[in-house]
Amino acid sequence: MKLSELGERKIIENLIRHLSSDTKTLGIGDDCAAIEYNDQYLLLSTDMISQQTHIHPQMTSFQIGWFITAINLSDIAAKGGIPYGVLLAMGLPADTKESFLTEIIQGAETCATSYGTHIIGGDTKETPQLILTGTSIGAVPKKEYMSRTGAQPGDIIAVTGTLGDAGLALHLLKNHMSNNQLSSKLFQPQPRIPEGRLLAQTHCITSAMDLSDGLSSSLHQLQKINHVGFEIQQNKLPISSNATKTSTKHQLNPAEFALHTGGDYELLVTLPSECFEQLQHSLKTTKTSITAIGTVTKINDITLQTGTTKKPLPKKGYEHFTPKKP
Amino acid sequence: MKLSELGERKIIENLIRHLSSDTKTLGIGDDCAAIEYNDQYLLLSTDMISQQTHIHPQMTSFQIGWFITAINLSDIAAKGGIPYGVLLAMGLPADTKESFLTEIIQGAETCATSYGTHIIGGDTKETPQLILTGTSIGAVPKKEYMSRTGAQPGDIIAVTGTLGDAGLALHLLKNHMSNNQLSSKLFQPQPRIPEGRLLAQTHCITSAMDLSDGLSSSLHQLQKINHVGFEIQQNKLPISSNATKTSTKHQLNPAEFALHTGGDYELLVTLPSECFEQLQHSLKTTKTSITAIGTVTKINDITLQTGTTKKPLPKKGYEHFTPKKP
Repeated sequence: MKLSELGERKIIENLIRHLSSDTKTLGIGDDCAAIEYNDQYLLLSTDMISQQTHIHPQMTSFQIGWFITAINLSDIAAKGGIPYGVLLAMGLPADTKESFLTEIIQGAETCATSYGTHIIGGDTKETPQLILTGTSIGAVPKKEYMSRTGAQPGDIIAVTGTLGDAGLALHLLKNHMSNNQLSSKLFQPQPRIPEGRLLAQTHCITSAMDLSDGLSSSLHQLQKINHVGFEIQQNKLPISSNATKTSTKHQLNPAEFALHTGGDYELLVTLPSECFEQLQHSLKTTKTSITAIGTVTKINDITLQTGTTKKPLPKKGYEHFTPKKP
Repeated sequence: MKLSELGERKIIENLIRHLSSDTKTLGIGDDCAAIEYNDQYLLLSTDMISQQTHIHPQMTSFQIGWFITAINLSDIAAKGGIPYGVLLAMGLPADTKESFLTEIIQGAETCATSYGTHIIGGDTKETPQLILTGTSIGAVPKKEYMSRTGAQPGDIIAVTGTLGDAGLALHLLKNHMSNNQLSSKLFQPQPRIPEGRLLAQTHCITSAMDLSDGLSSSLHQLQKINHVGFEIQQNKLPISSNATKTSTKHQLNPAEFALHTGGDYELLVTLPSECFEQLQHSLKTTKTSITAIGTVTKINDITLQTGTTKKPLPKKGYEHFTPKKP
């Protein structure tokens, strides 16, 4: 069978079967691996981007460098980790200008230092088109490790920041429009490193992941491994005033972007309801909001409440090697 | 200026200037980064390979997976490190057969488990041609860390195993011939993990690196950062009986391959002469030989002694983005 008939998540599921288990390692199938190391977990994540997939023609080279660094740091953030460094392997055409490469590195290093870490190494190779692979390393005290599994019925579902800005920005760009503030959220995402640390330190989080793939896709991933359901309130979705204004102007529904587009790199967490106030309080220093958007249920499905209507929330959003519909 | 006018090493030199320093991190510009972590260094290395550069059409998919894992582990070996895990990011065309990908993973996992570790995570993305980026993580007690700098005049220069097999295999393949045993050394290199550990534990090694790029190229890299010279004895170069036999058959000089071709992934070390016997003894359990091939000198040049003739040893070997000769 060809990869294009399987889809990325099925491919990964199948691959995992060929890996031997190791009691010291967590997170196989997760975006971030965790290796037991004394009273800590070492956290490791790798992400590849290419012109074909993530590098929009309007991105500056500085933004490309920022982006590959940010998305790798986001995986550390989702575990509550402290970043220790980022490696950057770059495949570049031979006729690439040196200044282009320099700006990529400047973007990468600026992102890394903004989150208290550095580019600590890498590799350069000749390739027909631009390909970047970032790897982030970090650590988290075992007690503060935020797992993808552990969501309990009755828990609150919460997200940091606002949702849909990146997806809306991409939609505008595809339609030859743009909004600088939204484009900046798409091209220069802010990995939620300080927020992840603070959330982890509350010891309240029952499950967590980052929203690289968008809310509905992430909820479906969480549901699959947690054997619980999720009930999302559409009117609770945190949508930025800019996204609301821009959507209204172009007769778009911002909730559609908040639900089904990726690229926001916010954190999605579940937690017992009695902890929520503490969580809001602990994030105050970061100026990043945290919003309760629904509850974890016993029934193993995902629903969206819109006004008085409750409907199943479909899984939408981009997946690599997406199976072609018959 | 374009990358093809600069060459890989110059590109990296220039890039490093844009990275901020961090007293806790070693190895910027090295193939392996080292992060201070209590009494250890965490070791991290990343390598990208593509069809254009390292993936020979005759390699099986199993060998491709083995290769990307082995070359990343080799960087851990060169530091004397214990591997903790390998991440594998894969860019694949959409029409790739799943079995091809499965075999890559099986090769990668077989290599990792052969050296006491595992594939602990990764990424899959759609790309026009096959691109793999591996990242290895490991650790070494600070006292046993083998640095690239520290070679002293009077030190012995030594290498593990035999040299030139991989280069000779590649030459044969390019000329539509082949030798299974040599091809296997080219396509399934053995990272010197146990040897690196044993060498590190002697506390004798003054400088070390792996021979991914070939002997002359590696010596030139070491010379640049150590401000010493090297005197190599051609008749001391360890050449396998297979390489000698095959070279004779095809009227080739095996020393040329031992000196100037990469891909052997042996370890090159310098050490005080009084330690050499201890080193030979400590490697006995591995069945890997260690051979003294020359001495470190005060005079900042690299020479090759052939019979009674001593000549400068030029830097040859493959470099990405090699500047075009006028």
